[in-house]
Amino acid sequence: MADKKKLIDLNDDLSSDDDDDNIKILDTATSPESTEEPSTSYCQPIGETGNSQQKEDVPSLLTMDAEHESEAPPTFESIDYDAGHISANGIANRNENSEPIFHVRSRTAASLAGVSQQEQTQYESLDYDVCENKLFQDEQLSRLRDRFSLRTHIIRWIIFILIGIITAVIACTIDIVIEELSELKYNFLKSSVDDNVTVNKSGGDLALPYLWWLLLSAVPVAIGAGMVTYIEPITAGSGIPQVKSYLNGVKIPRIVRVKTLAVKSIGVITSVVGGLAGGKEGPMIHAGAVVAAGISQGKSTTFVKDFHIFKAFRDDHEKRDFVLGGAAAGVSAAFGAPIGGMLFSLEEAASFWNQNLIWRTLIASIISSFTLNIVLSAYHGVSGLTFTGLFNLGKFDHPLTFEYFELPLFMLLGVMGGLMGAAWNFLNTQINKFRSRFVPWRAGKVCEAVLVAILGVTLACAMIYYINDCRPLGNDPTIHPVQLFCEDNEYNAVAALWFQTPEATVRALFHDPPGSHKILTLAVFTIVYYLLSCSTFGLNVSLGVFIPTALVGAAWGRLVAMLLFYMFPEAQFLHPGKYALIGAAANLGGVLRMTISLSVILMETTGVETSFFFPLIIALISAKWVGDYFNDGIYDTVIEVNHVPMLPWEPLPQYKGLTAQAILSKPVVCIKLRDRAHYIYEVLHKCNHNGFPVVDDVEGDRRSEGRVCGIILRSQLIVILLKSLYVENQRFWQQETTIQTFRDVYPRYPSIQSVKPLDRKFNYTVDLSMFMNPSPVRVNTYDSVPRIFNIFRALGLRHLLVINNENRIEGIITRRDFIYK
Amino acid sequence: MADKKKLIDLNDDLSSDDDDDNIKILDTATSPESTEEPSTSYCQPIGETGNSQQKEDVPSLLTMDAEHESEAPPTFESIDYDAGHISANGIANRNENSEPIFHVRSRTAASLAGVSQQEQTQYESLDYDVCENKLFQDEQLSRLRDRFSLRTHIIRWIIFILIGIITAVIACTIDIVIEELSELKYNFLKSSVDDNVTVNKSGGDLALPYLWWLLLSAVPVAIGAGMVTYIEPITAGSGIPQVKSYLNGVKIPRIVRVKTLAVKSIGVITSVVGGLAGGKEGPMIHAGAVVAAGISQGKSTTFVKDFHIFKAFRDDHEKRDFVLGGAAAGVSAAFGAPIGGMLFSLEEAASFWNQNLIWRTLIASIISSFTLNIVLSAYHGVSGLTFTGLFNLGKFDHPLTFEYFELPLFMLLGVMGGLMGAAWNFLNTQINKFRSRFVPWRAGKVCEAVLVAILGVTLACAMIYYINDCRPLGNDPTIHPVQLFCEDNEYNAVAALWFQTPEATVRALFHDPPGSHKILTLAVFTIVYYLLSCSTFGLNVSLGVFIPTALVGAAWGRLVAMLLFYMFPEAQFLHPGKYALIGAAANLGGVLRMTISLSVILMETTGVETSFFFPLIIALISAKWVGDYFNDGIYDTVIEVNHVPMLPWEPLPQYKGLTAQAILSKPVVCIKLRDRAHYIYEVLHKCNHNGFPVVDDVEGDRRSEGRVCGIILRSQLIVILLKSLYVENQRFWQQETTIQTFRDVYPRYPSIQSVKPLDRKFNYTVDLSMFMNPSPVRVNTYDSVPRIFNIFRALGLRHLLVINNENRIEGIITRRDFIYK
Repeated sequence: MADKKKLIDLNDDLSSDDDDDNIKILDTATSPESTEEPSTSYCQPIGETGNSQQKEDVPSLLTMDAEHESEAPPTFESIDYDAGHISANGIANRNENSEPIFHVRSRTAASLAGVSQQEQTQYESLDYDVCENKLFQDEQLSRLRDRFSLRTHIIRWIIFILIGIITAVIACTIDIVIEELSELKYNFLKSSVDDNVTVNKSGGDLALPYLWWLLLSAVPVAIGAGMVTYIEPITAGSGIPQVKSYLNGVKIPRIVRVKTLAVKSIGVITSVVGGLAGGKEGPMIHAGAVVAAGISQGKSTTFVKDFHIFKAFRDDHEKRDFVLGGAAAGVSAAFGAPIGGMLFSLEEAASFWNQNLIWRTLIASIISSFTLNIVLSAYHGVSGLTFTGLFNLGKFDHPLTFEYFELPLFMLLGVMGGLMGAAWNFLNTQINKFRSRFVPWRAGKVCEAVLVAILGVTLACAMIYYINDCRPLGNDPTIHPVQLFCEDNEYNAVAALWFQTPEATVRALFHDPPGSHKILTLAVFTIVYYLLSCSTFGLNVSLGVFIPTALVGAAWGRLVAMLLFYMFPEAQFLHPGKYALIGAAANLGGVLRMTISLSVILMETTGVETSFFFPLIIALISAKWVGDYFNDGIYDTVIEVNHVPMLPWEPLPQYKGLTAQAILSKPVVCIKLRDRAHYIYEVLHKCNHNGFPVVDDVEGDRRSEGRVCGIILRSQLIVILLKSLYVENQRFWQQETTIQTFRDVYPRYPSIQSVKPLDRKFNYTVDLSMFMNPSPVRVNTYDSVPRIFNIFRALGLRHLLVINNENRIEGIITRRDFIYK
Repeated sequence: MADKKKLIDLNDDLSSDDDDDNIKILDTATSPESTEEPSTSYCQPIGETGNSQQKEDVPSLLTMDAEHESEAPPTFESIDYDAGHISANGIANRNENSEPIFHVRSRTAASLAGVSQQEQTQYESLDYDVCENKLFQDEQLSRLRDRFSLRTHIIRWIIFILIGIITAVIACTIDIVIEELSELKYNFLKSSVDDNVTVNKSGGDLALPYLWWLLLSAVPVAIGAGMVTYIEPITAGSGIPQVKSYLNGVKIPRIVRVKTLAVKSIGVITSVVGGLAGGKEGPMIHAGAVVAAGISQGKSTTFVKDFHIFKAFRDDHEKRDFVLGGAAAGVSAAFGAPIGGMLFSLEEAASFWNQNLIWRTLIASIISSFTLNIVLSAYHGVSGLTFTGLFNLGKFDHPLTFEYFELPLFMLLGVMGGLMGAAWNFLNTQINKFRSRFVPWRAGKVCEAVLVAILGVTLACAMIYYINDCRPLGNDPTIHPVQLFCEDNEYNAVAALWFQTPEATVRALFHDPPGSHKILTLAVFTIVYYLLSCSTFGLNVSLGVFIPTALVGAAWGRLVAMLLFYMFPEAQFLHPGKYALIGAAANLGGVLRMTISLSVILMETTGVETSFFFPLIIALISAKWVGDYFNDGIYDTVIEVNHVPMLPWEPLPQYKGLTAQAILSKPVVCIKLRDRAHYIYEVLHKCNHNGFPVVDDVEGDRRSEGRVCGIILRSQLIVILLKSLYVENQRFWQQETTIQTFRDVYPRYPSIQSVKPLDRKFNYTVDLSMFMNPSPVRVNTYDSVPRIFNIFRALGLRHLLVINNENRIEGIITRRDFIYK
């Protein structure tokens, strides 16, 4: 009993004031009759008795616990995140009647108490930090000898080029399929309308075309939503928030699989063809990321196929760099904007950059836009490689000019965009909250998507039916001019807005000559599309938010120009396309809040001159600042709603003036430099931590008082146990064990359940000196949090050890400890 | 004697094998009669006797040493760099007969032995790392209260906008003055030629125009070279290497002063008007950096004027961020390329970026290009803000197209550019070596510049005289067509190349219609200008290398197109302007080796379409790779020749597999947390180190065995001594001492010589806990060097402490320890 008391004291010197409670719990736990109480098997370093003579007692205790766990494994599965040193929170939730065994001193744990375990636990960090253990060093030295380094370098370049090409080919395919199918659909609808109207000009039976339209919208949307819902739910939405989180260092399950790519591609085609208010750009960027992750690893989990190539790139560090290139290539392919693509990657993940990475990313972008150019030029039968469709929002024929007095006007448009964007984000968040509460079933989600599609068609029909906006066919830029109730030689301008993909409508609003629409048409269109896009984003379909946002902005931008022209008919500067562009920029700035990449993308995708950069920036920056006053950008909102532990750019203000002491999680489960295999086996079973400090200079089993000499990851420990890399049988494995042994299992590390009980090897020893990372980043207890944050972010860490002046462990800091709000 | 032996042991446990030698020296040193031996007064922690009873002896020793130093102060002045913990190298040089007192274990010290002290010592690091001491924390907390933070934020934005505006105005002024003066000069020369030729068409007396030309070239060049040489030598060259070094974290003396700006501006005007083979772009970038540093600090050292504004920005961290924006604004103003400007800054200093900084830099760039647009539009009388002169290499009227089979051709041009660039860099380096050896005198440097100017004029005249290249005046794009020996209605195409600024010639080569030159003309022009530009860069004048390099490239690019056209007369794709552009890109890639920013700058400055990005990149990347095989880019070469300790992007390969142990410098001079004022005074006098670890848990005076608890900078210690911030008189200063006390002296910290001898305050105590940086970045002795390098670079450190497992100091690592080659 005295030993047990001591054990608690060692584990948590802060709980000394309620020792007795703790002892009671531990007592219950260790007595064999209390098997119905599962609280014993939490993250408790059980072997850590103060006295080494007690070792003989431990095995029986451990064995009992192990049996114990096999009875109820799911209780641990759920608390599997990050370093997990704050997992006691989960424990506290479960054992509400009893005191937690660990007195956890993490602010984060407290703050996250409101969040369900499920939500906390689905995200882990990437191991961006390279583990420079002995095996790694050996590999480095051998590389130095055989010029392996140069080969790796060249292969890396080739991969980046491949990423660019394949991303562009996928993007082109999506593009062309959408274009062809939409062409078929709207051609059919047009002739259907024409057939049914011509009989009687003044009214006409439009029920049939309406029903056709409904069918041609509902069916594709149902297919798309069904695939997303039943096959791969991660493909819902634009994918940009997921890619952004991944680049920030959060592992999102299944985000970069081939299956995800397939579902996303088909999903986006069906949804756009179905006529939902969404764009294909976000999914294309996600597609780029998947392509990058897939190619660079030389294997596919979906197809259970390993090509045994590119093995040197199988770690989180390399993979993330490739994904960065893939995202850039995706942007480049989606918008024909190579520099914008590079800047997009830069804006999302700038803290880990170096020159070579920027350069490779730029190359991937350029290759991607060049491939796009070749394929689209061939498809459209244009020679000379100047297909201007690369400017997918259409190139302005004449350089856009502006006068000084327009600048305040642009700023006002920006403010308006900011207000509308903030309102949009708020509305969308509310709708999605409603959705997640009242439509939890899968079938419901599919139905919902179909309903929104039907709503869209109905509203469009109502607009076309009730608004009488006829324009002469002469300067007609529309592909499918619908005559409807108009005179001969005229077409219906409302139908022209709706009878094409949203992207084509943006193009039309930018480039249609002045006087192509009535003011009423655009006003109603803006409102309808605003609401439609707001209810669409968050549906279980693969659709981006860029195009609908730009469309709404372009509509009200053009509307403003028309209103101004109505008031000042002699104003020559009121080019409606220019105002549509500024409106689109303002609305995008208000919703997305991206700035650098967005401005460059808009410039590149419309081919405006450098001199027009300034008005764009004025509108964007006003929109962003006004919007930021109210809420976050839509991507960040999505990330926050999903409780993804994104690291912000700068430490949160409330962390100012705090020291490491205030945010660290403790106590920490440590492992000795030479430890017993069984202890490790048990720790892995009991704890879900992903990183364990390695200590030496340990008195007996008082590990958490040891001196830090490294850190080892859970995945490495499991590999050690699986491959039986023990000291006692060293001669069998020493020769053939390299860093490749550990890389082979990347990225799906086996769980501890796949390790057979140790049996014979019960008393074997593991020497971690070869496997651990011998130079973990350490900070002192009294270091200030902003500084620690900078180190953590700049180096892309997963675990940060906090030590005291004696180099003994005081606690551990992980990503979550920085995002308490 | 026993104590003295112990002293040596303490200071350097590695010198134990030659203790006797050391004792002899120290013995000599400490005995009063040996005052003629100055080796005592080096960086020796003299107070550190092993026995605290010995303290009484120390003062006399110190006093003696202090007197000693005042007799021969220059001997220490020269060893003033960085942490200086490797200063024993300097000592070794001086005391060649005796052993160094410190057995320094720095690889760098050994490697730098060949470099003279002078060269090593003129560069120090910037303190980019924020010192988060107690005073700073207090300020942070007070800012949290009074919304100071928001105000600072807004002011920072305003400064960035001001930087953009002022940089652009300066750039415009330089631009317009050059244009006007060149216009006058070449108009005069043209009429002079016309007057002297018309008499006799077949020969003519061209001596007079030649002499005029000589005069109009030599005089401005002499003025420019004279100003640079006699007033501010740092303004020589383009300024980009200096700005690059500064952004990398190296303090270059006088680089950001107003005087430098003035000399540079006048220097570049005179040199370009004088007709030297150089451009104004590099100096404009430097000008941007100066403007940024000047404005952000709210004071000027040149005018000895402090405006008492922007005081919060007076540290290296803030200042460097502003300089980043200034450099971007400079590029933007020089090329009309805002995105290129941002990317230039990014490419040079990407390791310290965050999103906000990128964003502010982009704004500075855009404001700068917008201001340029306004001013130049007004100057040229263009309305509507679309002055295409912003594309300062001229906008291509029609989109450039290319065929697939041209891509290998572009790659070949790139290879050629790489070869020519590498040869240019080699030649230029050789010429500059020759120069620094044989022309050390100031007057000689001015003469040299004038000679090169005369050489240029002579070669140009010879070309004009001997090459007969007449073109009809019809499609003439030249401003000053010189008839010379041509028929009426014809002009001399050779004279057209020479009778304008180099920038205008680049424009001409890009945009002149096909058939504007003979093959011979361009071939000779390429060779002449190649050699001229090679001998010009490195002269004591303010000139950049961008324009001449682009000019040479454009000339041979156009030449290639003409040769190909000669061979395949039916080839339609051979647009000479396109090949001139590709040639310019290839040559620039070969000489400068910048890639990202260069490609974007070229795109923005010629307004080519995104689809032509790919050929440009193909040429650039081939040129860079081929060039890199032979040598470094010209900027890096200049930096290397000047022994600037630039941190590379990645750790040098020979550091792979090493641990901190191998590169650290030791022993380290430490200061106790509460130490005697006199000890600090003496240490500052004896050592030139810039950072001192603060230790506690010290037994007696064995400071270097103490436990690390912080780091303090030399400048802070001097302020403490100057302001008498002692424990004993704490009540007098405690209230009014804030971080501002330390900021006031930035950036010209007083030297220790300005501190009066302590006299009365001899035994006063300094408590550093309030002033020191309590969370210095520490690494372990066994951490690998590549990892340490990453930390050092990512955090922009100046000093990195190496500690052992007991948290005792083992050594210190500074910038120089990473650049051993």
